[in-house]
Amino acid sequence: MKILILGGDGYCGWPTALHLSDAGHQVAIVDNLCRRRFDEEELGNTSLTPIRSLDERVQAWQEVSGRRLGVFVGDLLDYDFLAAVIAELEPEAVVHYAEQRSAPYSMIDRRHAYFTQHNNVLGNLNLLYALKEQAPEAQLVKLGTMGEYGTPNIDIEEGYLDIEHNGRTDRLPYPKLPPSFYHCSKVHDSTNIHFACRVWGLRATDLNQGVVYGTVTAQTLRDPRLVNRFDYDDVFGTALNRFCVQAAIGHPLTVYGSGGQTRGYLDIRDTVRCIELACLNPAAAGEMRVFNQFTEQFSVRQLAELVLKAALELGISAAIKPLPNPRVEAQEHYYNARHTALLELGLEPHLLGESLLDSLVNIALEHRERVDPELILPRVDWRRADNPLRPAAVPG
Amino acid sequence: MKILILGGDGYCGWPTALHLSDAGHQVAIVDNLCRRRFDEEELGNTSLTPIRSLDERVQAWQEVSGRRLGVFVGDLLDYDFLAAVIAELEPEAVVHYAEQRSAPYSMIDRRHAYFTQHNNVLGNLNLLYALKEQAPEAQLVKLGTMGEYGTPNIDIEEGYLDIEHNGRTDRLPYPKLPPSFYHCSKVHDSTNIHFACRVWGLRATDLNQGVVYGTVTAQTLRDPRLVNRFDYDDVFGTALNRFCVQAAIGHPLTVYGSGGQTRGYLDIRDTVRCIELACLNPAAAGEMRVFNQFTEQFSVRQLAELVLKAALELGISAAIKPLPNPRVEAQEHYYNARHTALLELGLEPHLLGESLLDSLVNIALEHRERVDPELILPRVDWRRADNPLRPAAVPG
Repeated sequence: MKILILGGDGYCGWPTALHLSDAGHQVAIVDNLCRRRFDEEELGNTSLTPIRSLDERVQAWQEVSGRRLGVFVGDLLDYDFLAAVIAELEPEAVVHYAEQRSAPYSMIDRRHAYFTQHNNVLGNLNLLYALKEQAPEAQLVKLGTMGEYGTPNIDIEEGYLDIEHNGRTDRLPYPKLPPSFYHCSKVHDSTNIHFACRVWGLRATDLNQGVVYGTVTAQTLRDPRLVNRFDYDDVFGTALNRFCVQAAIGHPLTVYGSGGQTRGYLDIRDTVRCIELACLNPAAAGEMRVFNQFTEQFSVRQLAELVLKAALELGISAAIKPLPNPRVEAQEHYYNARHTALLELGLEPHLLGESLLDSLVNIALEHRERVDPELILPRVDWRRADNPLRPAAVPG
Repeated sequence: MKILILGGDGYCGWPTALHLSDAGHQVAIVDNLCRRRFDEEELGNTSLTPIRSLDERVQAWQEVSGRRLGVFVGDLLDYDFLAAVIAELEPEAVVHYAEQRSAPYSMIDRRHAYFTQHNNVLGNLNLLYALKEQAPEAQLVKLGTMGEYGTPNIDIEEGYLDIEHNGRTDRLPYPKLPPSFYHCSKVHDSTNIHFACRVWGLRATDLNQGVVYGTVTAQTLRDPRLVNRFDYDDVFGTALNRFCVQAAIGHPLTVYGSGGQTRGYLDIRDTVRCIELACLNPAAAGEMRVFNQFTEQFSVRQLAELVLKAALELGISAAIKPLPNPRVEAQEHYYNARHTALLELGLEPHLLGESLLDSLVNIALEHRERVDPELILPRVDWRRADNPLRPAAVPG
């Protein structure tokens, strides 16, 4: 099918583009390349893995696979651009990753919170109008986050909850307790998408994704130029990836607070498969389906201990260093989230095992000379409205 | 107390400013005057009542009452302006009306939906940062809407719902089903405010207001130059006010669809009192209270019949004309919304009675020569993404 991937140059977007192209779909990418700019111009970060330019990636994929990826560099906030791309491509599915995805980034200061909600909420609103006007039958496959739910004291369902109240019943959107302005932006998106489905009959799948780990997929392994990004810094690095890098360079594993914070996690190879499953099994007209996209729950403490063990077997001795939690969140809490819808559609999870942890630590070891230890400690305190950013590194 | 009213030149903001000033509070207004510009430059609308410029209003109030209202003309999207005003005034309460408040306006086309969410969500986000940085102890009194809840099949509570699920319980934000991009923007605001209270300990009251009717308060009656606006057009006119104008000019009362749509309503004299009660009874640090701010429920059909009866007693024979519903909404539905919190704080409702309806129809009769009948019929179809706007009237 014809699939457009918004944000197709990012950590999840790029391997998704390769996976769907490899599966025979006709794939095009839209990206404004802002993720690279955050690193180069603002945060002084660099992907652990040496990622190539979007042009070079796309060229490499064509050489390796014989398949061409369409590329449109532009911004969802530019409605005329977005509508023109959708009108030209007539996609059957639009996968929307093109949002600022870091909670700490959104909590740096007012400017970053504003950027995050402006970019995410209004970009997604433009997309809803572009679909309504140019491709009303297309599937919207939108990346949300498990963080939308927060940590309620009841079981988390997939997007909706059957509620009985004073002797009457209804099935309503699951209540949300987002823990950052980034997570709030995803709640806003869900609200807007749900409305657009009800009022215009759009078809949408809202994928509330857990924390993604890993970096390689079957496709990215086929050429070094296809390598995916791997973030280990405090702003964009996800917990497990960061722990592996810390172990590899002999840095203590930085656990925030008690480490009892429990979340859903998944392998990036499952991310790309979940997207495919959502595209292949469309939502009905007027329906916003919600799938919880993760495969296992772990506490941060459990993750750190798994990494310690894997490192030890590679001959690396690491330690856990608890840090005061820079976030405002419950540190010990109930957490039990349903995640059966994607399994029912055929997802076969890659569960977190020793071999995967070995390979992650090995990737970190392979690139250890690229690690800047100063990027690891948390720089963004949720309690402050004005966290200072380090000066940007000189682009190299 | 020192109270800052954002949007203090509007339909609810202006009488609120007068009421609070009259009650002895030290009141200042912030407004960007955009509501006047919508009428003059875009919609060709005019308030039924001949409202004066903000300067003239404020001057008149000073002459009549001896009290001075502070005035700051500027935009919440201009963070430096907003933060400077709050730093200068050190308000104990900030009443936030400064949002685009019309559902049809938000559904005209993409540009208007985008404007509404940009203005409302990001203006409110700026306000949260300004409070955090300049006045973290101040009360935020924020106008939301009963429309955030939509029309669920269960009783509507005041902001939160005690949920039992699989043998566990929690008190969670009440699920939302907003029926326009405007209503979505208010849901987004509630989500952001709730987060800011949890993370920063801000104090907020989210007032989910019903449909306001009436135009006069004890203060606006004291001088013709203090007259409040009265909208009867399809975009900004609220249902009851519009029906009174229709009756006054012999236009059939335009009921959308079956007229079974039931909502909460309140007199504008209760609006201003509710705001005062919220300011005088502060929320705790870290708390976002939600009050449902209305006094009675009516269906649109019931309202139209009440107006017909009141008009008949004034010797006016009017009729009801059902129109195809331009909105996408349930036309016959369950509706039972709690609204006890403000009563418990001391609100003494002005219920909708014959004398009020008489006076509303009489206001409409008094100004009937100012009515443009072409502004009455609905111009905004929820099912379209591109409703054409009439050319703006020449400003007169």
